[in-house]
Amino acid sequence: MKNTAVLLLSAPMRLARKGAVAAVSQFLIAHNGDLLHSDDHLDSGRDLFLSRLEWDLAEFDIPISDFERHFQPLADRFSINFHLALTDYRPKIAILVSAYDHCLADLLYRQSTGELACDIVLIVSNHATAKPLADFFHVPFHLLTNPTNKHDSEREMLELFGQHVDLIVLARYMQILGPEFVAQYLLRMINIHHSFLPAFVGAKPYHQAFERGVKLIGVTSHYVTTTLDDGPIIEQDVVRVSHRDTVEDMLNKGRDLEKVVLSRAVRWHLENRILVYQNKTIVFT
Amino acid sequence: MKNTAVLLLSAPMRLARKGAVAAVSQFLIAHNGDLLHSDDHLDSGRDLFLSRLEWDLAEFDIPISDFERHFQPLADRFSINFHLALTDYRPKIAILVSAYDHCLADLLYRQSTGELACDIVLIVSNHATAKPLADFFHVPFHLLTNPTNKHDSEREMLELFGQHVDLIVLARYMQILGPEFVAQYLLRMINIHHSFLPAFVGAKPYHQAFERGVKLIGVTSHYVTTTLDDGPIIEQDVVRVSHRDTVEDMLNKGRDLEKVVLSRAVRWHLENRILVYQNKTIVFT
Amino acid sequence: MKNTAVLLLSAPMRLARKGAVAAVSQFLIAHNGDLLHSDDHLDSGRDLFLSRLEWDLAEFDIPISDFERHFQPLADRFSINFHLALTDYRPKIAILVSAYDHCLADLLYRQSTGELACDIVLIVSNHATAKPLADFFHVPFHLLTNPTNKHDSEREMLELFGQHVDLIVLARYMQILGPEFVAQYLLRMINIHHSFLPAFVGAKPYHQAFERGVKLIGVTSHYVTTTLDDGPIIEQDVVRVSHRDTVEDMLNKGRDLEKVVLSRAVRWHLENRILVYQNKTIVFT
Amino acid sequence: MKNTAVLLLSAPMRLARKGAVAAVSQFLIAHNGDLLHSDDHLDSGRDLFLSRLEWDLAEFDIPISDFERHFQPLADRFSINFHLALTDYRPKIAILVSAYDHCLADLLYRQSTGELACDIVLIVSNHATAKPLADFFHVPFHLLTNPTNKHDSEREMLELFGQHVDLIVLARYMQILGPEFVAQYLLRMINIHHSFLPAFVGAKPYHQAFERGVKLIGVTSHYVTTTLDDGPIIEQDVVRVSHRDTVEDMLNKGRDLEKVVLSRAVRWHLENRILVYQNKTIVFT
Repeated sequence: MKNTAVLLLSAPMRLARKGAVAAVSQFLIAHNGDLLHSDDHLDSGRDLFLSRLEWDLAEFDIPISDFERHFQPLADRFSINFHLALTDYRPKIAILVSAYDHCLADLLYRQSTGELACDIVLIVSNHATAKPLADFFHVPFHLLTNPTNKHDSEREMLELFGQHVDLIVLARYMQILGPEFVAQYLLRMINIHHSFLPAFVGAKPYHQAFERGVKLIGVTSHYVTTTLDDGPIIEQDVVRVSHRDTVEDMLNKGRDLEKVVLSRAVRWHLENRILVYQNKTIVFT
Repeated sequence: MKNTAVLLLSAPMRLARKGAVAAVSQFLIAHNGDLLHSDDHLDSGRDLFLSRLEWDLAEFDIPISDFERHFQPLADRFSINFHLALTDYRPKIAILVSAYDHCLADLLYRQSTGELACDIVLIVSNHATAKPLADFFHVPFHLLTNPTNKHDSEREMLELFGQHVDLIVLARYMQILGPEFVAQYLLRMINIHHSFLPAFVGAKPYHQAFERGVKLIGVTSHYVTTTLDDGPIIEQDVVRVSHRDTVEDMLNKGRDLEKVVLSRAVRWHLENRILVYQNKTIVFT
Repeated sequence: MKNTAVLLLSAPMRLARKGAVAAVSQFLIAHNGDLLHSDDHLDSGRDLFLSRLEWDLAEFDIPISDFERHFQPLADRFSINFHLALTDYRPKIAILVSAYDHCLADLLYRQSTGELACDIVLIVSNHATAKPLADFFHVPFHLLTNPTNKHDSEREMLELFGQHVDLIVLARYMQILGPEFVAQYLLRMINIHHSFLPAFVGAKPYHQAFERGVKLIGVTSHYVTTTLDDGPIIEQDVVRVSHRDTVEDMLNKGRDLEKVVLSRAVRWHLENRILVYQNKTIVFT
Repeated sequence: MKNTAVLLLSAPMRLARKGAVAAVSQFLIAHNGDLLHSDDHLDSGRDLFLSRLEWDLAEFDIPISDFERHFQPLADRFSINFHLALTDYRPKIAILVSAYDHCLADLLYRQSTGELACDIVLIVSNHATAKPLADFFHVPFHLLTNPTNKHDSEREMLELFGQHVDLIVLARYMQILGPEFVAQYLLRMINIHHSFLPAFVGAKPYHQAFERGVKLIGVTSHYVTTTLDDGPIIEQDVVRVSHRDTVEDMLNKGRDLEKVVLSRAVRWHLENRILVYQNKTIVFT
C-alpha cells in the first residue's frame, strides 16, 4: 500500500521559471518529502506551467491535513493553483449502465484484481441485466424506479449518491444527462463514446461509421460537459475495419476498444494524472 | 513485367450465387486464362456480389481488344457490370501540388523505384517551389499562369490534360476544385485530406485537432466528389499525439502519415484494386 | 441461429485454376447451396490453392451427413483436401488456467454474450483461484489432484477430456505440456504467449522485454506444437511502452493485449477461418 | 533560429531528491536562464535520477563556453553526470548507404526542409546508385575505393571522417562494421535494422519473418555496438501483414517503416533527447 501524496498544480509560466519550480522542490525537501515522480508541461501559447508531483509521506513532517495552511503562502507568492490528493484514499465510484454491460464487467474485474484503486459503491441501471454481475462482485445494484422518466431518474440518482460519490462512470449508459445533473459532477463524470470524436457525435456512431465507409473506427473517453460529446477528451483509440466488417463486426471490435479506453481513463483519473484546462486534458503518464 | 488482366465486376447477389461465379471461372478456363488472384465480397444489405479477378494473359486465347465482345453475353445473362484493365498498361498521372511538396517528393521517388506502376506525365502547381524536384525526376512542370484565378486555372488544366491523363493526384494542392472540373475526373482524382474524416472537414485540420485536444490525429485519402471532403474514402491512418505535441509537431507527424496514406491509395488505384459503390470503397488487398 | 456449412480446402494450384474452383461452385449450385462467403488464396511458392466457402443449408439438397460421399469424387478429380464444418455445431472447449485468470474471465464473458459460439465444458487449473468465476458462469471446475506432478496432471486431463473436447485453450496455463499430450490435440490447442514471438521465447517475457529496452511489447496466440513457442501463429498485436513503464506497467498493458488476441484466435478457430500449412496460418477474415 | 542550451544529466536518486533538482533550477534562475522544458525520470531499480533541461540563452549571464567551470561545483556536490549541448550548433553527419537508397532519399529531403537540424557533410557508399541523389541535394558523395575489402573500407572512412563527423547514420548500409570502427563512434552511430529486434537478428529478416508466419513486421533503430543488432534501441514500429503479403510486399511495407523510424531516431539524437544507460535508451519526447 502506497503512502504518497500527489500535487497537481498550474502557475503562470513566467513566475514558474523565475523560481516556483525550485521553491516547490525546496518546500518538499525542507519537510522531508521524498520526491518519487515529477512531470511538467509548459504551454507557452497559454503562458501556463503545469506540473504533477508525487512524494513519499513516510517521513514528511507536515500533517497532511495541515498541508494547505503550510503551502498556501508559497502558492500565493507564485500564483499557483493546486490540488492535493492522497494515494491511500480510495475514491468512491458509481457506475451507470444500460443493458450493454461489457464495460461494467470489465471495470468490476479490474477493480477486483487491484488494477483500479477505488471502491465501487453502487451500480445504477435502467435495466435489470447487470444485477447478477453486481451480485457476484458484491456491489449494491440499484434499478431506477421510473427509467423512462429522465427527470425523475436524475433526481433519484442525485439523492442516492448524496455526498458519497467521488466519480461517476458512464459505462455505456446511453442516456443524455441534463445540465443540472452534469453540473453536480463536473470533471467528476467520465463517459465512453463509441466513436472517434469529433467524428460521429450522437446516436448510433458505428452505424454512421459504416455508412460513411471509414477505414478505422474509434472510441473516446471524456469528461461529461453540458454540450453533448464535447467534453475534454481523456483517451482515444482506433481499430482497423474493412468492407468485410458488417455493422455487427464493428460493434464487436468497438466493444474491445471501449473496455480498454474507458478503463485507462478511469485509472488515470483515480491516479490523479489528469489536469484539465481550456476544455483539453493533460495526462501525466 | 507482368502480362495480366484484371476484371472488376459486380452483379446482383442472387444471380451471382446461382451460377455467375462458376460461369466466369469457366469462361476463363475455357480460354486458357490462368487465374492468379480472385477476391470476392458479398454485400447482403445491398444484394451485391463484387469481385476482382486477375489472370495470366500468356496463353489466353481471346485477343484482349476483343474481350468485351466475347464476355458481354455472359455479363448480360447474369446482369454483371464489369471493368477490364491490363496490367501492362501504365496509367498516365498528373500531380497537382502547392508549396507543400513532401507528398510530391514521395510519389516521384516511389515511381522512380518501380513501386508505382505509372507514368507521371505532368506536375502542375500554383507555386514554383517544386520545379527543381520535377526537373530531377525528368517530369514536365507547369506553373499556372494565373494561380489566384480559380476559373482560369481549372480551364488551363483541362486544356493541358486533354484526353491524356488517366488519374489526377492532389498531393496537398490546397485549392477546392469546381464541380465542372471534378465531373471530368470523377473516380479518377485522388486527394489527401490531413484529418481523420469526417472529423475536421475543411481548412487547417491540424489546428482544429489541436484546439479540440484529440489524442490521435489522422489523414484520409479519398476520391474527390463535388461535396467537400465527402468522397469515397480509400485509406486512413492515425498517429498518437499528446499535450507535448505543438501544432508544429502535429504538422510533422501528419506529413509522414500523408505520404504513406496517399501513396497507398494511388498504388491501389493503379493496381485496379478499388471498387466504388454507395459512396464507399472496397479495396481488394 | 445460422444454418450454414463451411468448407476449408486446399488443392494444387494448377489443378485449381484448370477447373477446381468452377467445379466446386457448380457442385454447390447444383445442390441448391446458396454461397454466402468465399475467400481464396493462391500460394504460388508452394503451388497451393486454398479456399474457404460458406453456404446456406436451408435448401441444400444433400443431407449434410452424406456430404463426403457426394463430394469425394470431385475432390479426387482435382486432388482437393477438404474439411467440412457445420455452423450450428457448438464446439466443446476446455480451458486450462493457472492463478492468472484475466483471460479466463474474458473468455467466459464473451461466451456468455454469444460472441464465442461454443460450449465451455470444463475449466482445469493447478490453483483454486478461478473457482468462483467458474461457478458464476456455471462451468464445471476441476482442480488438478497433484498439480506439481506434470506427468500425473497430463494423464488426469487426458482422462477427463476423453473424446468430449474439441479444443483446448491455454489461457495463461504457465506449464509446458509434454509431447504425448500435445500430439492428442494437434491444431486443436491454442496458447497465448505473452511476447511478440519469435522474440522472447520461454519464461518471463515481459521481464526480458524490459531488460532489452524494447519500445513496443507484444503477445502471440498460436497453436501448440512440440517445440516450445514455435507453433503456427494465429494472431499477434503490440502496444507501445516507454522508459516510464515499469515491469508492472508492462504486465498491465500486456494483459489487455492477451485478452483481445487470445479471444480473436479462439473465435477464428471456432468460425473455421483458419487453415494451417507449412507451420503458418491463413486466417480468412 | 533557437538559441537554447540542453542539459542531459544523471545523478544518484537519493541525492537528486535531497536537493539536486532544486539546486539545478536555482542555478539557472540565478543566471537568468529561462527554463523552456524539463523532463525527469526516476529509475528506482537503478537508484538513478535522469533529466533533460532546456533553457533560453538570450539573457543567460554565463558565457556558454564557461558553463562547465560554473556548473562543476554543483555537479560535484550531488554527483551529477552531465552533458551540455547547444541548439544552434548543427551536428555534422555522414550517411553510409548501399544500393537501397530509400532511407537516404528520405533523410536528405527532411534535412532540406529543415525537419532535421544538421549538416549532411558526406555520403559514403559501396555502390554508385545514390550519386545523383547526393548531387541533387548538393552533398559530397564518396564511392569506396575497394568496397569488397571491409578492412580497407573502414580505414578509408575513418580517414575521410577524421574529427569532422559528429554522427554516422547507417541508412541500410548492409555491412557489419568491425569493433575498431564501432569503438570510434560509440553512441554516435545509428542503424536501422529491418526487423522488430530481438526477433530476426542478422541477414534477410523479412524473409525470416515470412517463413515464421508472423502477423506483424517491424523495424528497429538503435545505436551500434560491437554485438550485432544488440545496441540500445531508440525506436521501433510495426505494420500488420497477412497471408496475402508476399516477401516483396513485406519489403515494400517495411521500407515505409524504415524511413519513419530511422528519421525519428536521428531527429531525437540531434535534438539531444536521448539518454543511454544499461544498454537502454530514455527518449525525452
